[in-house]
Amino acid sequence: MKGIYLDNSTTARPSQRAISAMLPFYSDLWGTPSVPHQGGNILIATIESSYRTIYRFLGAAEEDTFILTSCGAEAVNQVFNSVYHGVTRKNNKNHFLVCATDEAPALMCVSRLEEFGCVGGMVSPNANGIVTPELIQEQLTPSTALVSLSWGNGLTGTLHPAKEIAALCHANGVLFHLDVTHVLGKMDFDLDEIGANYLTFNAEQFHAPKGVGGVLFRKDVPAYAFIVGGIEQAALRAGSLNVPALVVLAEVSKEGEDHRDYLGTETARLRNKFEDNLQMLVPSAKLFFQNQERLPHISVMAFPGYVNETLLYLLNKKRVMACIGGGSFQQIALVMEACGVSRTLAHSAISFSLSRDTSDADVDDAADIIAAILKQLKPVGLEELC
Amino acid sequence: MKGIYLDNSTTARPSQRAISAMLPFYSDLWGTPSVPHQGGNILIATIESSYRTIYRFLGAAEEDTFILTSCGAEAVNQVFNSVYHGVTRKNNKNHFLVCATDEAPALMCVSRLEEFGCVGGMVSPNANGIVTPELIQEQLTPSTALVSLSWGNGLTGTLHPAKEIAALCHANGVLFHLDVTHVLGKMDFDLDEIGANYLTFNAEQFHAPKGVGGVLFRKDVPAYAFIVGGIEQAALRAGSLNVPALVVLAEVSKEGEDHRDYLGTETARLRNKFEDNLQMLVPSAKLFFQNQERLPHISVMAFPGYVNETLLYLLNKKRVMACIGGGSFQQIALVMEACGVSRTLAHSAISFSLSRDTSDADVDDAADIIAAILKQLKPVGLEELC
Repeated sequence: MKGIYLDNSTTARPSQRAISAMLPFYSDLWGTPSVPHQGGNILIATIESSYRTIYRFLGAAEEDTFILTSCGAEAVNQVFNSVYHGVTRKNNKNHFLVCATDEAPALMCVSRLEEFGCVGGMVSPNANGIVTPELIQEQLTPSTALVSLSWGNGLTGTLHPAKEIAALCHANGVLFHLDVTHVLGKMDFDLDEIGANYLTFNAEQFHAPKGVGGVLFRKDVPAYAFIVGGIEQAALRAGSLNVPALVVLAEVSKEGEDHRDYLGTETARLRNKFEDNLQMLVPSAKLFFQNQERLPHISVMAFPGYVNETLLYLLNKKRVMACIGGGSFQQIALVMEACGVSRTLAHSAISFSLSRDTSDADVDDAADIIAAILKQLKPVGLEELC
Repeated sequence: MKGIYLDNSTTARPSQRAISAMLPFYSDLWGTPSVPHQGGNILIATIESSYRTIYRFLGAAEEDTFILTSCGAEAVNQVFNSVYHGVTRKNNKNHFLVCATDEAPALMCVSRLEEFGCVGGMVSPNANGIVTPELIQEQLTPSTALVSLSWGNGLTGTLHPAKEIAALCHANGVLFHLDVTHVLGKMDFDLDEIGANYLTFNAEQFHAPKGVGGVLFRKDVPAYAFIVGGIEQAALRAGSLNVPALVVLAEVSKEGEDHRDYLGTETARLRNKFEDNLQMLVPSAKLFFQNQERLPHISVMAFPGYVNETLLYLLNKKRVMACIGGGSFQQIALVMEACGVSRTLAHSAISFSLSRDTSDADVDDAADIIAAILKQLKPVGLEELC
């Protein structure tokens, strides 16, 4: 793809090493693992080592159960359904708490469960974009079955205090689901310390191709098949095991481990440079969430007096690709408003997300291009547009 | 994969032409289609032409809605859930009728729905392996919401009279789901004439790699998202559209069209040759379903006095790969028993499935190898083993 790609929260360039590792499973080793002949047997060693790599990357224990899914959305659906089947239908706890700035799958899973007598709750983050344990606590009820949170927000880059929220959940007998899509490969963490009961992720954000995601069921949590119809993957996910997808996930997991430090420092350096450049070139630009814990690769900023859709369109003409939401994301304006940002400012916000492919030249050029576009553009009264 | 591969009902070798067509979408065109910048825009033409090819292959109309899924099992789950949401929850019709010899997803979807107050019914085929309209009619009730059937059985090769069953369903206000996994690319059919309301398929049986399936919702039938969480694919399937999978499906659809006649004649010729050879070399072998409508690429036969698991093991040692069920299939012994075959005979049955890759040498050698193995093996009284 030609141009300056700063939309890595939506999807990151598939790792060519991982794609290469996957290809033999299309050309030669294409059997189905569950069959009792060499077409399947020959795959067993690869499958086992792939799972081991993935477990290590997640920091999972042997007693945990990892399920390969076709995307993060499927993984999230499986968690909500598991809690519904394993808790709500058994103990009548029917309250599901999600974060207002989270992505569509969690929010829409709640809407779906509401059709079955469940009650959805929504926590809005504070002005720093953070969901605190106190904000969660205010909404917990004796009926709360699950708290679901995306640890790092893919648009704003803010990180919620997962460990403290997990502790609060456990103290109240509530299960805790953490979506780690935007965190995996970017930050080191100790899964036992974090204490989530379910992890989910979509893998294209860390350089897998589309069509790869996963759920980790920690030991002893309710686990139910979502796609029913077979004994594959411990009877928790029907459909022949997608071996190429498993192999590619193992490969990007290895790379994620290898690059984690780099992303934490070098990508953060580039992100900071980008922000500094822009602040200098466009003094009116408003940067958010700089002084708090956040992901190393995401920057969100507002350009007062400009509509973000227009800016994105003009940026694209100059081959700079950024994000204002869409796909599984909510519109960034809504996310920023939920963080207490004024409506007009929220509608001028753009999210930029870097990856290990991003270079100094990319962030330098992107800042220059943004500044040049803004110079040519007449600011408008956003009040009239919103 | 080295050897003689006669397990194409489980999975068929991925088309290398289709894999090649997919690769640019991993290396260069890896954007997310829904984003409003060139990373997505550049994909639109390919996506549109891919859908057009798939619609043509299925014989679908513009008003129908095709949804790309991650496998056939997901597609089947989506159909059952759509009928549950669109019919059962609205009109209280809660009876779901499936075929006893069908694959696990349909059967297990019914079990899952039974937890929600639905009633499952199961139709056993007649001694020819066929579910007739009469057998369906016997079990229809005023509460029947859905009849679900795999048109062609992947183990036995038998074909149910879909058109007549569809007519019966429509006359009774019952929706009809047809799984065409084993039929697609093997037989020509006119979708309007068949009259099913839902088509589903898993695509690895016609040379797509693993991880590709689909549902076709015909015009005006209840359609609900199963994986909820986004507006992708008409809000009927969350997760960024898996563009490489869509491209590969379009490519194998094209090839399916091109090879359909070949499969109907040349593969049938090889299958018949294989059966004739075996009948000659092993006169005691019992062939099934020869004198009725069946798929051109599947042969099921029993070897009285021998346990099919043992035979499969020994065949595998000689690099002949065949099938006795497993994966999403039921065990072939259970399927054959459901067709009225005696228990001992059923446990000696093996299913062989050919593809366009199968050669004259393959079927000749396979028959010789089977005959040689049987010669060395002492028949046992299966009564004691079952």
